[in-house]
Amino acid sequence: MSQPVAANSLLVPAEALITWASACLCAVQMPDDDARELATALVQTNLWGIDSHGIARLTHYLERMRRGSILARPVMEEQRTGPCTALLHGGQGQGHVVAFRANRLAMAMARESGIGAVGVTDSSHCGAIGLYTREAARAGLVGIAFTHADSVAVPHGGLRPFFGTNPIAIAFPRQGAEPVCLDMATTSIPMNRVMNAKREGHPLPPDVAVDAQGQATTDAQAAVAVTPLGGAQYGHKGYALALMVDLLCGPLMGNAYGRQLSSMYGDLDAPRRLGAFFIVIDPARFGGPLLPAIVAQMAADLVAEPGSPRMPGDPERDHETERRASGIPVEPELLAEMRRWSAQLGVAAPA
Amino acid sequence: MSQPVAANSLLVPAEALITWASACLCAVQMPDDDARELATALVQTNLWGIDSHGIARLTHYLERMRRGSILARPVMEEQRTGPCTALLHGGQGQGHVVAFRANRLAMAMARESGIGAVGVTDSSHCGAIGLYTREAARAGLVGIAFTHADSVAVPHGGLRPFFGTNPIAIAFPRQGAEPVCLDMATTSIPMNRVMNAKREGHPLPPDVAVDAQGQATTDAQAAVAVTPLGGAQYGHKGYALALMVDLLCGPLMGNAYGRQLSSMYGDLDAPRRLGAFFIVIDPARFGGPLLPAIVAQMAADLVAEPGSPRMPGDPERDHETERRASGIPVEPELLAEMRRWSAQLGVAAPA
Repeated sequence: MSQPVAANSLLVPAEALITWASACLCAVQMPDDDARELATALVQTNLWGIDSHGIARLTHYLERMRRGSILARPVMEEQRTGPCTALLHGGQGQGHVVAFRANRLAMAMARESGIGAVGVTDSSHCGAIGLYTREAARAGLVGIAFTHADSVAVPHGGLRPFFGTNPIAIAFPRQGAEPVCLDMATTSIPMNRVMNAKREGHPLPPDVAVDAQGQATTDAQAAVAVTPLGGAQYGHKGYALALMVDLLCGPLMGNAYGRQLSSMYGDLDAPRRLGAFFIVIDPARFGGPLLPAIVAQMAADLVAEPGSPRMPGDPERDHETERRASGIPVEPELLAEMRRWSAQLGVAAPA
Repeated sequence: MSQPVAANSLLVPAEALITWASACLCAVQMPDDDARELATALVQTNLWGIDSHGIARLTHYLERMRRGSILARPVMEEQRTGPCTALLHGGQGQGHVVAFRANRLAMAMARESGIGAVGVTDSSHCGAIGLYTREAARAGLVGIAFTHADSVAVPHGGLRPFFGTNPIAIAFPRQGAEPVCLDMATTSIPMNRVMNAKREGHPLPPDVAVDAQGQATTDAQAAVAVTPLGGAQYGHKGYALALMVDLLCGPLMGNAYGRQLSSMYGDLDAPRRLGAFFIVIDPARFGGPLLPAIVAQMAADLVAEPGSPRMPGDPERDHETERRASGIPVEPELLAEMRRWSAQLGVAAPA
């Protein structure tokens, strides 16, 4: 998940970024608690090394809140449909805010009844979905999350983008350590890696992107879309996963699918109306209370193997240790953008 | 999913194989209904073109039933733990028989309460898990299934097998057609493709298998294990999926994990004690009754794209059309084995 960092980045302490982001969000009328939670989630994502879904996205959310396509104070509606199922209508809210609420509802139902499954409608970009599954796992539960996104991935056998990078996250509690957490796009690489390569003049790895004719290319300037996990030979698997994630978050929840989804950076005045799906499971209803200890034992078994394979989520944990000490790298262009927004909103710049 | 077929195979009608397999299973004391259901499931899997999980596995199940490591008449125990959760203790039963029961319990809970999540313990090899998700989808529900298997896959970053090919299946109902169904191993290729290449003297594709030192090889004779979906560059994703499937079917259900799992073809006297996990969702509790029509529309949208990408499960449907007409190919070695078992059990050979 770790992403390249520009050499001329400024290192900013996490807490300074949280303070700054919270102040900006309050300035566009987000309630204090939501502002602090969103700011903390974005910076947490940077701490994990996932800069594509971190503080760099804040100005986009601010812009959409200013235009009204994301509402800073949404009226959300919880629709309980059974002992373990619900829909959360997001009221055009900011994606993280809606997702935290949906995931916590799923957690509450799981604690009460063994499993909770909460679908989301009328939401927006909710960032790195490992945020939600880890929250469930830190509470001793198993978290599963899906969300869909605008179309940047070419179907296996197709030539034009149709599905998004449609991620899957699953997290398990681990005794004495942070949760084990898978959080992966169903494409080989995220679209932002193509954007970075364009900007920096680097070639792309083979078998991960296509040009406007749908042909494989390593030329970042020519690349317009990414391809499913598995590449040319086994991409039917990544494609099928992306399609199922879209069905789970889109049509299953009464939401749109595929190219019907509005673009994140297209019309900034149009609400996104995105879906998501959170499933939380209480291990107490299945194999029981030993689970976190067994997960820790599995991690120990793996690290003792030749080659020392790691658990999903451990690279992010190591990033966090490093970045809590060193600060979070902020590229010059982003820093300039942050200062412009600070001036506009009357908020002290973070650096 | 389609697998190569030896040119000197005999084509046998599906119904003849079902009749033969049912008779063999009854001869080892399986109840009639279970025998017919298992026989039908195996032949259905061949009809889909997935010969690795079809009728070729029957003699293995018969051998284990004769030895008592699979019980033809298991005493299963349903342990309801909430309105939407249960464990099914498989009583050392045959994997398909246990899985059908667990999946149907999940379907019943989904119809009654919106979602059903059923974990399985003390079971054995349950074949192609798309069998179960398709059954849910044909009933208008969304089916999700996982199972784990003995270790043949090298973790990303590791050198020795640890996890199985640990498959994931998800199926959705589709109006006017068979369900859309993803049913995929979390490795690039199944281990049986390595075995076939060994036997036939073919090389393997690059980046899918390793030798005894854990190094990538295309030499089928040297290959001892397979690698996660995503290969050398992106295999951390397939690896993490396999690990999560093992956690969901193993430790979450109180079952073993990784190399603790007994080998399918190792000690035939030792019970497998495998786990599985079935989640079934009723769309009526979420976006509602339009789902099958929207899935059909998505399929139509995709086929109208340049390149005409297909829905997961459509290649299997096409295989079925062809093989219902032509018969199912049975290789000479398998046919000889089937005739030996027929003679031993006093059952008429299928061909």
